[in-house]
Amino acid sequence: MAGEGLEAVGPAIVLVEPQLGENIGMVARAMANFDLRDLRIVAPRDGWPNERARAAASGAIHVIDAARVFAGVEEAVADLTYVVATTARPRDSLKPVRGPDEAGTDLRGRISAGQPAGILFGRERFGLSNEEVGLADEIVTFPVNPAFASLNIAQAVLLMSYEWMRSGEEMAKGRAHVPTEAPPAEKVDLYRFLDHLEGTLDTAQYFHPPEKRTAMTQKVRTILTRAAFSEMEVRTLRGMLRHIERRMKAGPGKRSNGAPAGDETA
Amino acid sequence: MAGEGLEAVGPAIVLVEPQLGENIGMVARAMANFDLRDLRIVAPRDGWPNERARAAASGAIHVIDAARVFAGVEEAVADLTYVVATTARPRDSLKPVRGPDEAGTDLRGRISAGQPAGILFGRERFGLSNEEVGLADEIVTFPVNPAFASLNIAQAVLLMSYEWMRSGEEMAKGRAHVPTEAPPAEKVDLYRFLDHLEGTLDTAQYFHPPEKRTAMTQKVRTILTRAAFSEMEVRTLRGMLRHIERRMKAGPGKRSNGAPAGDETA
Repeated sequence: MAGEGLEAVGPAIVLVEPQLGENIGMVARAMANFDLRDLRIVAPRDGWPNERARAAASGAIHVIDAARVFAGVEEAVADLTYVVATTARPRDSLKPVRGPDEAGTDLRGRISAGQPAGILFGRERFGLSNEEVGLADEIVTFPVNPAFASLNIAQAVLLMSYEWMRSGEEMAKGRAHVPTEAPPAEKVDLYRFLDHLEGTLDTAQYFHPPEKRTAMTQKVRTILTRAAFSEMEVRTLRGMLRHIERRMKAGPGKRSNGAPAGDETA
Repeated sequence: MAGEGLEAVGPAIVLVEPQLGENIGMVARAMANFDLRDLRIVAPRDGWPNERARAAASGAIHVIDAARVFAGVEEAVADLTYVVATTARPRDSLKPVRGPDEAGTDLRGRISAGQPAGILFGRERFGLSNEEVGLADEIVTFPVNPAFASLNIAQAVLLMSYEWMRSGEEMAKGRAHVPTEAPPAEKVDLYRFLDHLEGTLDTAQYFHPPEKRTAMTQKVRTILTRAAFSEMEVRTLRGMLRHIERRMKAGPGKRSNGAPAGDETA
């Protein structure tokens, strides 16, 4: 079972009167992708358990098997302290309305503080009733194109689950991003490559007319410095250049000495 | 039709060899939710047009009808200046790796600056090949549960489309960055330069032994794609290469034809 034994905690995902087993299965998969496990189903149309849900869940069977069924929304959220209702568009309501990102951050804060929370998702056809929305502490709407707003419940669960995961990353790292870059080349290696290249270009009579040599050299240096090559990359580039140069000296048709190619130390 | 007449611009969504028409239809719906319209399909398994794709798209038929089919990834991204590859988990690559949120912000900045960009999504079964990832400027991975990473392509498109929409909201709040760079090269020009360079390296017997050719080519392409050369820079690099090649043909000691050097049009 995915991540068994880890103390993973997240918001409960509450599906209200879902109709299609396939959608329930896809919800389970969306949850598993972001390590959510607490699935609650209110009055599923086709009863429970549901073979279509199991089939569509594929690897997320652990979520389906742990799902709980309730007769109504009130029962389903009874043990929670904070409930968010998802709606296709803002309702005429006095409740706070947020985007999924703010909601994710808010839920993270509450759950980290030991306050169980959950998210309501409505029926495929007409979402949540006003009464059900009335049970929630806040409303989340998705920033969709008003001319084409048709997220299905599995997609809505996917976006909320994604924002839950993302809020954890934000919390863990702050907003800092650590680039995974290779060690950059020391300037001395880069310059050696540039000198080498300029020698080759001289041989190739690239710098013409001579009075433009300085400006042209500068341009080549700028291009190849801006690229911020790594140590390994500079080594590869020098290997390429060495082969080209050898061939220039050997002339057309002749074989050069056939030394092995690839990375070479200087 | 959704939003017809609006000057809506966003990243191209490029599906590489998608297998199931249903998935293509669901991709179209995900795009329409966030007002993306430029769908490009590389070698769809079941041909095109695809009735199953139309059926699954339901209200997003306008995206399906406007979709374009290409024989390969290179052709599909030829007119773009920045390409992001989505992968299930980080590859052993020197390309920058980001999350969908940073990528969305970055794409927003580029597209706002008039630089066309696109996002690659791989096959249902095994994603993108290393060669295809090699064509991209950066990699996006989704922050999924490592024990259960199974986003399908429609879900991956949904998350990227959502982040695209969200970046627009951020920009409205003044947080997205706008790069102040020289106009980047179109991919078609970069690929032409890389083809040219590989021809030169072949002549120089750089690719040795022959069985290492693919890996070595891949490495060279990765280095020179990561550098994100501008249009002017690619032109200069091609001019350099042309001189070197001419000299290789002329052989040592002889003067080549003495054509003026510097920037040349292709």
